Amino acid sequence: MNRRDFIQQAPQTVAAATLISPAAPESAPARPFVHHVYFWLANPDSEADRKQLLAALETLKTVPVIRQAYIGTPASTNRDVIDRSYQVSWLLFFDSLADEEVYQKHPIHLEFVKKHSHLWKKVVVYDSVSLSTK
Amino acid sequence: MNRRDFIQQAPQTVAAATLISPAAPESAPARPFVHHVYFWLANPDSEADRKQLLAALETLKTVPVIRQAYIGTPASTNRDVIDRSYQVSWLLFFDSLADEEVYQKHPIHLEFVKKHSHLWKKVVVYDSVSLSTK
Repeated sequence: MNRRDFIQQAPQTVAAATLISPAAPESAPARPFVHHVYFWLANPDSEADRKQLLAALETLKTVPVIRQAYIGTPASTNRDVIDRSYQVSWLLFFDSLADEEVYQKHPIHLEFVKKHSHLWKKVVVYDSVSLSTK
Repeated sequence: MNRRDFIQQAPQTVAAATLISPAAPESAPARPFVHHVYFWLANPDSEADRKQLLAALETLKTVPVIRQAYIGTPASTNRDVIDRSYQVSWLLFFDSLADEEVYQKHPIHLEFVKKHSHLWKKVVVYDSVSLSTK
């Protein structure tokens, strides 16, 4: 749901959506746009490369439209269905698809890709629209 | 970081960690355990199957140790690096790995798998430990 759609909803629908996540800050959307990126490093055993990417993501997360960011690495869990072959997880919440598009074109993002894309051999992105939350 | 580690930190470290996410509810951990599951339905064109899975996830999200849950479907974004071949995204935040293990063995979760696993042909799980947040 983008911001415009949210505003155009009938008031009772907006109230119902707000009730989905009563503990969230007032300014956070009830149903965020979720952008999850997994990085596979070109040199997966290089601690220096991993640190460089993590440091670059610290800068990248300053892009103002990013509502929440979680920079992570694979957990110790290990079952058949778990993919733990990636090195870095980059999970972002946006208020809307429009905000995610602003992020994609933001100078800090373009600079991040230009300066650091040599570090990874593969990225997989999953974008999802939240239907329901807890 | 599990709850015990968090408590055992020096007070100044806890204060610094809290500053990472000043808008979060006081009880939320600064660096959650992130469990992201993507479902590929056995019958991806079946709206009935999709609705059944979404409804089942509504029940599943009542497992008490789940701190936050986001049930989603692929966004309209479409670039080379984006995987939008899945049908349902199930993103969970836990306070710790220990809580995620409680969830895995919880009766509601076991019942969910038993009753609904025929609906999907593939699941991929990415578990990550947050190093840093915004």
